[in-house]
Amino acid sequence: MGDRLPAFAVSSARLRRDLEHVAGYGATVSGGVSRTSFSAADREVRAWLAATCEQAGLVMRTDGVGNVFVRLDAPGAPAGAPPVWAGSHLDSVPEGGRFDGALGSLAALEVVRRLAEERVPLRRPVEAVVFADEEGNYHHLFGSTALARGFTSDELGELRGRDGDLLVDALRGMGFDGAAATRTAVRPGDVHAYAELHIEQGSVLESAGAAIGVVTAIVGMGGGHLEFRGRQDHAGTTPMPMRRDALRGAGELLVRLPDVARSVSDDAVVTCGILHVEPGGANVVPGVVGMSLDFRDPERSRLLDLEEAVVAAARDAAHRHDLEVAYTRESITDPVPLDPRVQELVATVAACHGMETRRLPSGAGHDAQNMARLAPAGMIFVPSVGGRSHSPAELTTWEDVEAGANVLLGVVHALATE
Amino acid sequence: MGDRLPAFAVSSARLRRDLEHVAGYGATVSGGVSRTSFSAADREVRAWLAATCEQAGLVMRTDGVGNVFVRLDAPGAPAGAPPVWAGSHLDSVPEGGRFDGALGSLAALEVVRRLAEERVPLRRPVEAVVFADEEGNYHHLFGSTALARGFTSDELGELRGRDGDLLVDALRGMGFDGAAATRTAVRPGDVHAYAELHIEQGSVLESAGAAIGVVTAIVGMGGGHLEFRGRQDHAGTTPMPMRRDALRGAGELLVRLPDVARSVSDDAVVTCGILHVEPGGANVVPGVVGMSLDFRDPERSRLLDLEEAVVAAARDAAHRHDLEVAYTRESITDPVPLDPRVQELVATVAACHGMETRRLPSGAGHDAQNMARLAPAGMIFVPSVGGRSHSPAELTTWEDVEAGANVLLGVVHALATE
Repeated sequence: MGDRLPAFAVSSARLRRDLEHVAGYGATVSGGVSRTSFSAADREVRAWLAATCEQAGLVMRTDGVGNVFVRLDAPGAPAGAPPVWAGSHLDSVPEGGRFDGALGSLAALEVVRRLAEERVPLRRPVEAVVFADEEGNYHHLFGSTALARGFTSDELGELRGRDGDLLVDALRGMGFDGAAATRTAVRPGDVHAYAELHIEQGSVLESAGAAIGVVTAIVGMGGGHLEFRGRQDHAGTTPMPMRRDALRGAGELLVRLPDVARSVSDDAVVTCGILHVEPGGANVVPGVVGMSLDFRDPERSRLLDLEEAVVAAARDAAHRHDLEVAYTRESITDPVPLDPRVQELVATVAACHGMETRRLPSGAGHDAQNMARLAPAGMIFVPSVGGRSHSPAELTTWEDVEAGANVLLGVVHALATE
Repeated sequence: MGDRLPAFAVSSARLRRDLEHVAGYGATVSGGVSRTSFSAADREVRAWLAATCEQAGLVMRTDGVGNVFVRLDAPGAPAGAPPVWAGSHLDSVPEGGRFDGALGSLAALEVVRRLAEERVPLRRPVEAVVFADEEGNYHHLFGSTALARGFTSDELGELRGRDGDLLVDALRGMGFDGAAATRTAVRPGDVHAYAELHIEQGSVLESAGAAIGVVTAIVGMGGGHLEFRGRQDHAGTTPMPMRRDALRGAGELLVRLPDVARSVSDDAVVTCGILHVEPGGANVVPGVVGMSLDFRDPERSRLLDLEEAVVAAARDAAHRHDLEVAYTRESITDPVPLDPRVQELVATVAACHGMETRRLPSGAGHDAQNMARLAPAGMIFVPSVGGRSHSPAELTTWEDVEAGANVLLGVVHALATE
């Protein structure tokens, strides 16, 4: 594939300037970014993007749910040739970082700009895409879900943000065509391929010393709730051996979770992030402990094995401490394998640039998982310093930013010229 | 001491009728009792007590903080002879039970009534005492603390109930002499001896098959806060071996607490009743976990050993999981040994009645711990079915109620005739 790679590269100075500028929209005192979808800060970054495109002579359009497309036509291409899409998102979590989403969006813009500037011959159009509300103030991966499966107007009417506001009011306030919002769907075949550059949000690449992650899949994800039930007792009058302390069961399970995950696969992760003790008095032996469970694995069968192993360990812990335990599954999202050919392309382009790569699954959800339903889709990861993300501490070095953007450019070019 | 024990006994039918009647003041739909001090229900039970005393020809008085005294004079006694006190409290925790406090208060009333009815010759007065706000809506062991050490008017002015109301307003509302509230203190020597009958609130007596508990001490009590600090991470993107999950440290400590307590003494107990996870998102690896610690032992040196052993175990758990841990002591209350002579008296009287006894410390706080600062003090425990207390499920059999009241009668008689 080496002959497909032109000798051009992104302008890393311009990309850095864009990233630094965009970090000012919704900037927080802590140095992070709060840019909720359809907020004032989102409105500002969209205005900046429109002005930037106009200046670069690029055509930008926004669909009915707020997804943005910056198009570069391929003059010699057959009419209606499906475009190559590259993109990410510009919204953030509250007190998020400067790179999550912004990197992939602005790198895609830079790729389109460079292809335009160099008048690179293409066999199909290229579009930089900015998906709306990826972080899910209204709905997890909102914009790409609207494209991949669509929403009915009833569904849309029920979506609310964390502040209780209605999505439909937010869309109307942005000036988007509310009626068109339900007619946004894209059909398989409408898009030739999709590539997304993103920060890893973990520390696998940093630990491995690799600049580029070749993402193999977006992990399957399960959510559930465990409840240990013992007996609420007086903390002073109940000798230790007579207690049925619900926290003992929870404690034992927490200690065992790493082994349970390892028994399923090296990629398996299990997290308890919410733990609720009842009745919650300092001088009362806990009668009930509720625990959230988040479990993930890149393979569906292993995801189910993982759930089973966690529940078995919970039953075992409950039994040993004379407790009862109940498990409720709340959701299972299947893993999404990413396209093997796009993975190959990422690895090849990175190798051509002399970059170290590492194959890894994405532990977090991304718009690419919706795009994978419509077209061959791939993702490129770059290292997150210390694995920090969804935090003002989020950081990727400018060297890695440049490396990732150059790989994206090479991949998009290869896909648009094949 | 056998010659001191008269052949009389309490009227168990009358005591049962009183207990059942009093359970109606503040009765809850769940079958329990919510009788907060100085509430409407407390006002009603005080009115009933006054009427009952009047009917029995007994003199009742209330001091400036709401403690109630029902006095039986000893006609031949020297003027100013210090009285024997027997009592407990009539307030309850929210959704509490029918026996905690009410048993000891109404049994003391019954003892005074029986001594009066039988015109038993006494060498000193006997007073049934009902302490105000033992359950501490305004202050833990409020009424007996006021007697044992007094409150300044500044201190009183700052006390508030769980609903935010001021104690001084509540006292005024009850018609008590607010100005006299700070002049309630009793001096050592003012009281000859104190005896309190109470439910065990644990299951030691039930397990041992003993009807009567001879209480050796009121345990020392420590309160503290542990905080494990790791690193907040994304639950999807952080492989298990790379995590510094604060809940792992907390979990390991929770599992080890029974062994840690046992290493100090058979009476030692340690409880974590409140556990707080930060940031508390289902998809976030916990960065910080805060835990309340309640630890108790009947001996002061062991109480401090226990605290040290828990903190050492926490440090060990933190070290193993690459976390930091900080401990803050919030309070240490010294154990209060109960008077050995009163303990002997309780055991002897019970033995005369042919009752099985068991010596044990009280794991909960009681007004007796304040009274022990003023006079030789003792406590008699009767079994709690299933160890349940501070709950509508609180239950003591009528047989055990009668046994306990008869032991109280024998003990008070012995103390008032010695």
